Amino acid sequence: MEPVLLYDTTLRDGTQGENINFSAEEKIKIARRLDDFGIHYIEGGWPGSNPRDQRFFELAADEDFKTARLTAFGATRRPGIAPEEDANLAALLESKTPAVAVFGKTWDLHVRIMENTLEENLAMIGDTTAFLKRHGREIIYDAEHFFDGYRDNPDYALDTLKAAVENGADVVVLCDTNGGTLPFDIERIVCDVRRFLSDGFGEDRVRLGIHCHNDSGVAVANTVMAVQSGVVMVQGTINGYGERCGNADLTSVIPILCEKMDRPCVPEENLAQLQQLSRYVSETANMIPLNSRPFVGKSAFAHKGGIHVSAVMKEPRAYEHMDPQRVGNDRRVLVSDMSGKSNVEYKARELGVRLGGNGFDSRRIVSKIKCMEQDGYQFDVADGSFQILMEKFTDQFMPAFELESFRVTVEKDKDKPCSAHATIKISVGDQHEITAAEGHGPVSALDNAMRKALGQFFPDIDAMHLVDFKVRVIDGREGAAARVRVLIESRDEQEIWSTIGVSEDIIEASWQALADSYQCKLAVSALAEERRKAG
Amino acid sequence: MEPVLLYDTTLRDGTQGENINFSAEEKIKIARRLDDFGIHYIEGGWPGSNPRDQRFFELAADEDFKTARLTAFGATRRPGIAPEEDANLAALLESKTPAVAVFGKTWDLHVRIMENTLEENLAMIGDTTAFLKRHGREIIYDAEHFFDGYRDNPDYALDTLKAAVENGADVVVLCDTNGGTLPFDIERIVCDVRRFLSDGFGEDRVRLGIHCHNDSGVAVANTVMAVQSGVVMVQGTINGYGERCGNADLTSVIPILCEKMDRPCVPEENLAQLQQLSRYVSETANMIPLNSRPFVGKSAFAHKGGIHVSAVMKEPRAYEHMDPQRVGNDRRVLVSDMSGKSNVEYKARELGVRLGGNGFDSRRIVSKIKCMEQDGYQFDVADGSFQILMEKFTDQFMPAFELESFRVTVEKDKDKPCSAHATIKISVGDQHEITAAEGHGPVSALDNAMRKALGQFFPDIDAMHLVDFKVRVIDGREGAAARVRVLIESRDEQEIWSTIGVSEDIIEASWQALADSYQCKLAVSALAEERRKAG
Repeated sequence: MEPVLLYDTTLRDGTQGENINFSAEEKIKIARRLDDFGIHYIEGGWPGSNPRDQRFFELAADEDFKTARLTAFGATRRPGIAPEEDANLAALLESKTPAVAVFGKTWDLHVRIMENTLEENLAMIGDTTAFLKRHGREIIYDAEHFFDGYRDNPDYALDTLKAAVENGADVVVLCDTNGGTLPFDIERIVCDVRRFLSDGFGEDRVRLGIHCHNDSGVAVANTVMAVQSGVVMVQGTINGYGERCGNADLTSVIPILCEKMDRPCVPEENLAQLQQLSRYVSETANMIPLNSRPFVGKSAFAHKGGIHVSAVMKEPRAYEHMDPQRVGNDRRVLVSDMSGKSNVEYKARELGVRLGGNGFDSRRIVSKIKCMEQDGYQFDVADGSFQILMEKFTDQFMPAFELESFRVTVEKDKDKPCSAHATIKISVGDQHEITAAEGHGPVSALDNAMRKALGQFFPDIDAMHLVDFKVRVIDGREGAAARVRVLIESRDEQEIWSTIGVSEDIIEASWQALADSYQCKLAVSALAEERRKAG
Repeated sequence: MEPVLLYDTTLRDGTQGENINFSAEEKIKIARRLDDFGIHYIEGGWPGSNPRDQRFFELAADEDFKTARLTAFGATRRPGIAPEEDANLAALLESKTPAVAVFGKTWDLHVRIMENTLEENLAMIGDTTAFLKRHGREIIYDAEHFFDGYRDNPDYALDTLKAAVENGADVVVLCDTNGGTLPFDIERIVCDVRRFLSDGFGEDRVRLGIHCHNDSGVAVANTVMAVQSGVVMVQGTINGYGERCGNADLTSVIPILCEKMDRPCVPEENLAQLQQLSRYVSETANMIPLNSRPFVGKSAFAHKGGIHVSAVMKEPRAYEHMDPQRVGNDRRVLVSDMSGKSNVEYKARELGVRLGGNGFDSRRIVSKIKCMEQDGYQFDVADGSFQILMEKFTDQFMPAFELESFRVTVEKDKDKPCSAHATIKISVGDQHEITAAEGHGPVSALDNAMRKALGQFFPDIDAMHLVDFKVRVIDGREGAAARVRVLIESRDEQEIWSTIGVSEDIIEASWQALADSYQCKLAVSALAEERRKAG
């Protein structure tokens, strides 16, 4: 069977989703992850449409992707001008991507709305394709609103495809832009188009692709039906992010292709990274991961009810449509679980915390960690706090300082901006220090006070900075009393470390993460000092 | 065409979902709404399995449903006993529902796991069906794990259906219990089963139904494919609630049947209540409504981007797969940094803010909005704040209250948890109110104090709740002094609205969003009061 090509448009169509915004730098990070995962085409943005996408392609020029072909997206030339005169096409070429996706109008209704003629629209498609082809790009032609157009005026819709193929398009993508088409219509129309293209241009001249939106709740099914009907490129986004109800969710499409249709499109070991990829993108977008998301959601393989649980142990396939590990997910059942033990032991070794030698049961530590994770902690992204926690569990933690108390106050008068200040009292050994500071907001005030107090004892902390600060509401349904998770990234000249705090109180959560960050820094400094003295 | 029968199992299978729990009284309320909407069968619960479901059927005995047949759910008799001796079947009869749904095993693998024989399993299906039929019930036979069973052992799977039909089952429902089946397999297998049943029992002896789970993200598509292949009963839940990844979402299935497949199953005027039904169920379940939910979600008909917006006004069907009003939803235009003048003008009209008439230049408003978006505001997700902003720009804003001052303090001693309290002073007209409150964290304390102060003047605010709270650090690189964006979603019995605040100070940002939320609520209440007086 011909392999299926994965075309990801999280960075372009995905950002059309409500609440989905990425900076150019975040886009680069996501692109690297997509490439690592084995995506074949990454649509990075529309360079003609906004400066952020332009910046992305500048940054991307320095990247060295292993699998993925980077793709820039744009429209056909404007009516009545030559392709050479079109600024957007120039921007497309300037982005220097090996592949370009260019979209054109298929539906005569749209051509009329734009006050264009049907002939000029065909010429726009043909000219643009030929022009980009002359510049040596692989051309993916997106036939916008294809299915609606085909229903209204099939002959014209097919003519637009012909204009693209005749002029060199490598892939023709049928788009269900409004998301209103049903699976059996997708099947029928894809078969019609295949027949038309192979009659006109021969069996293998052009590849077919599919691009579905989820307005009818069937985007994944439509994509799968199209593959079953002969399409070889699938477009979609991670987590199905996208305009209105989203795009076809690649986190469902990919495992269906690999595991259920025998159309492997990424290596098996990469498929096992699928849940992590999904999480990474939702974290970057600051969207709460959907628990019920097929394949990768927290509940996707959760078993409720007693009969299931005993039976699923005997014969997993009786109650699970696939092995969750294949996509990096886990079965969740209400029985004690020791799978994390080896992970924790490995991690402890890595961080230099002695576990086994001093009589501490790593199984008990694992179960404590699981409880904390249930409460919202997430240690895979907070090495610093994880290290402190393990030291605490094993009585190896030697705090550089202790908190006596703090008080943070935020005041506001009428329309004036808020002012924030903090007082803090800490002890180092048997010495105390009390001081106060202002800040841009309560966390900044607390950080400033802390730094001032600690600076009396440890001049080293001048070299340390907070470089990133993230706040996440864990379950927003409690409104203003919701639990929040604060992640802090800190660095000095040598190191970068991350710490975490969780509480209903955002100041308490920030404090935990701040305190852990300073403790980490001071532990490293103390170690260096010891070594210096010894050596 | 034969009408499609809607079978809702929100109250039974829906409650298998993680976090979905209803009291017996809540179930009654939902059942009434389902009946009003025009659902044909309401599966109320499993009377043999728990006291809550038993209580539900006691309460339901006093209800007078207009359209719906109430249905009780249960298993076939236990192995080796007569149906008369089975306590669960007795409970099923005691629930006195006109219809019963009884599930049996289809997959030989399950029969073996349960250490039963294939013959006894057939006898259990046959006996149970005959027994319930003798008691005059309409019988819906749920063939559990049908598609998996059919793949492994088609002959035995068909034998189980035969046992049910021979003994009087009125409807046979094919269940994809593990949710692993794909649309083209559903199509093929449903056609096989139809042929088998009409060969054996004649064309019209028994009706076919479908019950799909969403583990592969294709439950709605599978349901639709089954109808296309001849099934006449669809089982599903409102909002797709259910175990793991959920059941087929009736809020998608119903509009597809009515609007796209010409299989009307509820009256047109009821279809326009679909969004309200969806909201009602998510409210009762205390689940955040999914914005991207097809047909009924807040984003389902939201338009971003300038070209779209001007075109969608000219010719809606060019950019919308259906008229949102048909399902009780609305078109929304999102004001984003891609937006132009026409978006803002459209939005103003939608929100009832007069722009043109009073000399305010919408171009200037757009450029101000762009500046604020540069600072981190995002108005496409905060209708409430956007409305207030436009009213402010055009001198139409009439605040229900004004802030005089507040002070929020968070204190911590050693290892004890933080405590937070707030004092606030507001004015309403020429009256002042000063008060204080505690909370789980500073924002919660401020919200509580605010609610207490406003409650003196506006008892209405009791009905208002914060349902979601989101914090996003806009650029974390400034560390603890980073700018944060706070989004708050609030609701009362009728409405959901969103507000936003942006500041370096998280308390200030939260305050802005909180204050806007209360202003929105009070503006709507004031309007309602005026109308009441006028009319």
